Amino acid sequence: MRKTAIIAEYNPFHNGHLHQAERARIETDADAVIAVMSAQFTQRGEPAAFDKWSRARAAVQTGAIDLVIELPTRFGVHRADRFASAAVAIAERVRCQTLSFGSESGDISAVTQAAAANIEATPAYQTAFKEALDNGRSSAKASSEAFGSLYPDFDLTLPNNILAYHYAKAATSIELHTIRRLGAGYHDPSVSDVMSATGVRAHYLESGMVRAVPDATRTLFQDNPMAHWSLYWPVLQYKLRTTPKDVLEQLVGIDSSLSPRLIQAGLEPTFEQALARLLTRRYTRTSIQRALVAILIHWRQDELPERFDDVPYIRPLAFNTIGRTVLKDIKKDVPLLSKYHPNLAFEARVTEAYRLPLGNRSLVEHMQTPQFIDSK
Amino acid sequence: MRKTAIIAEYNPFHNGHLHQAERARIETDADAVIAVMSAQFTQRGEPAAFDKWSRARAAVQTGAIDLVIELPTRFGVHRADRFASAAVAIAERVRCQTLSFGSESGDISAVTQAAAANIEATPAYQTAFKEALDNGRSSAKASSEAFGSLYPDFDLTLPNNILAYHYAKAATSIELHTIRRLGAGYHDPSVSDVMSATGVRAHYLESGMVRAVPDATRTLFQDNPMAHWSLYWPVLQYKLRTTPKDVLEQLVGIDSSLSPRLIQAGLEPTFEQALARLLTRRYTRTSIQRALVAILIHWRQDELPERFDDVPYIRPLAFNTIGRTVLKDIKKDVPLLSKYHPNLAFEARVTEAYRLPLGNRSLVEHMQTPQFIDSK
Repeated sequence: MRKTAIIAEYNPFHNGHLHQAERARIETDADAVIAVMSAQFTQRGEPAAFDKWSRARAAVQTGAIDLVIELPTRFGVHRADRFASAAVAIAERVRCQTLSFGSESGDISAVTQAAAANIEATPAYQTAFKEALDNGRSSAKASSEAFGSLYPDFDLTLPNNILAYHYAKAATSIELHTIRRLGAGYHDPSVSDVMSATGVRAHYLESGMVRAVPDATRTLFQDNPMAHWSLYWPVLQYKLRTTPKDVLEQLVGIDSSLSPRLIQAGLEPTFEQALARLLTRRYTRTSIQRALVAILIHWRQDELPERFDDVPYIRPLAFNTIGRTVLKDIKKDVPLLSKYHPNLAFEARVTEAYRLPLGNRSLVEHMQTPQFIDSK
Repeated sequence: MRKTAIIAEYNPFHNGHLHQAERARIETDADAVIAVMSAQFTQRGEPAAFDKWSRARAAVQTGAIDLVIELPTRFGVHRADRFASAAVAIAERVRCQTLSFGSESGDISAVTQAAAANIEATPAYQTAFKEALDNGRSSAKASSEAFGSLYPDFDLTLPNNILAYHYAKAATSIELHTIRRLGAGYHDPSVSDVMSATGVRAHYLESGMVRAVPDATRTLFQDNPMAHWSLYWPVLQYKLRTTPKDVLEQLVGIDSSLSPRLIQAGLEPTFEQALARLLTRRYTRTSIQRALVAILIHWRQDELPERFDDVPYIRPLAFNTIGRTVLKDIKKDVPLLSKYHPNLAFEARVTEAYRLPLGNRSLVEHMQTPQFIDSK
């Protein structure tokens, strides 16, 4: 059985995702297309627009995805290299032959060559990286600057390139494949309207209208409040104003230089005002948002995974008939969690923190099981 | 200058409180009437209907109270003996000559005689108390049963008697005075409508109408949402579902037998359903509510005061011209906090936790200062 993996957030699943999954199935000759999907918070530290169960269901309902596997929060809300390590590890664990991702060029060789060059292992890179840090760059920016100074052929400042590069670095047994992303100048008669996920969310917030998504995603918008950071500001204020400084500094991504700034920002009336106060060259929006995720779920440093290239379990969120066959196929030698298990305690905390400002509509994590969707 | 103290919650200040304060001023020949008032949470572990600054202002606006001093949460959300110790210590610290309180009988001698008997110091009491605990009684109930079996002349199961008794036990330099409480059969032409504070709140929740209160309190109801536990349930759920069991057990009033019950109760959709699940003979409504206060403010056992008969500071919340004279009078040798001070860090946490579901209307604690009200 040929299985192709896609690493995604589906925040939300839109026409571009549909195109990518359908092309990947054809081009890799896949019997099953499996998405490894971020849970309640995205890699860049934002609450996903809709909860993971709903997003997984919508993806399978389109018929383009056969199985959605959770990328646990502890592994997924991190800089690109850790995110990629964990997601690729899951894809390999369920024995996907191919990993398919979107790119501007549609050409895989530039990515694999850049990864093979192994620039980060050179002393020159370490020097350049440290220098950029000393100049007040954020860790992500220092890393891409150091890389660019030594390997100018591949632009590591583009977000899609960063992820592709780290997928290629993390891949051990899986083959890489890329689909050219839809955008200006691209025409496919089956896809008439394409926006990025950010564009879809922004358009909805501004106009109340949902564009460029399949029906399953449209239903998500109709049936649920859309999560975004501003809704969490009262809870974050409560946490920032009631948590002693030394306790804050036990949390992931918060050091003694950030903690007093966070406490001060907790006095701002809105999330955007607080964020504006917090941004510096060193503390980017992404690093601040990840720190706020850590605060919201009280994620202590001692709860960080020991390694990121080995996720201890596979948790299906939604599947169709083909996905069910995949699960039956692998369950003998892969640790598959379909019911609640103590390993999911952290993820359950995440879900409770995520649900709070959304009105607690969905079932608590303990009672959720993967959803079978008869899409094929 | 003759000063009379009243220990109160003013939750909210009603006509009965007005009568008590006015009678106390006359009967004790007081130049100043000073209230020692619970902060954001009451002795029995409930969020006060309105925040302490508003409640203090309303009390002074009536003209019956000249100065309101905060009874800090760390000292005030406790069983009656600790509450009384701390409140009496404050009254004595500001050199009140008299402590006046309400009672059914209007007769002080039964109270002082019962306190002087010092029943709790006898071995017979210890035996009876332990026996009642072993029979599954709550600590409060075991204590009143043991007392009643040895001293039947004074009924320690009546809430007013309990407080009066502990005031008498705690008093060292202050003289006791009592006012007969208004109720059935009592007629004072100046007070036509009297309800208990519980009655006032319940009537408001049921009918939306405010009864039996002076204008200053009526304004509180008009200008603010009324706090009650149900509004805090989403936050409590968040805390109960995201706080590991061992961390819960570090909090005041939560042992390893209560913690799993609390976590289970966190799954209930409403506060009242959760409370109903939690109540037993051993865990009374009061003890559960106090535990919920501890959860809401993350009050660790290591943050308990070392002793309750010595509050480290005096913090005025509101005063009029007479109250200002009192403050000037004592400030040379009493630790008076009128501006923010690190000693108030815990109380600031309490206020932030209290404010959250009320829409954050008031100033943060750090920016609050006592209010002068020109009531006389």
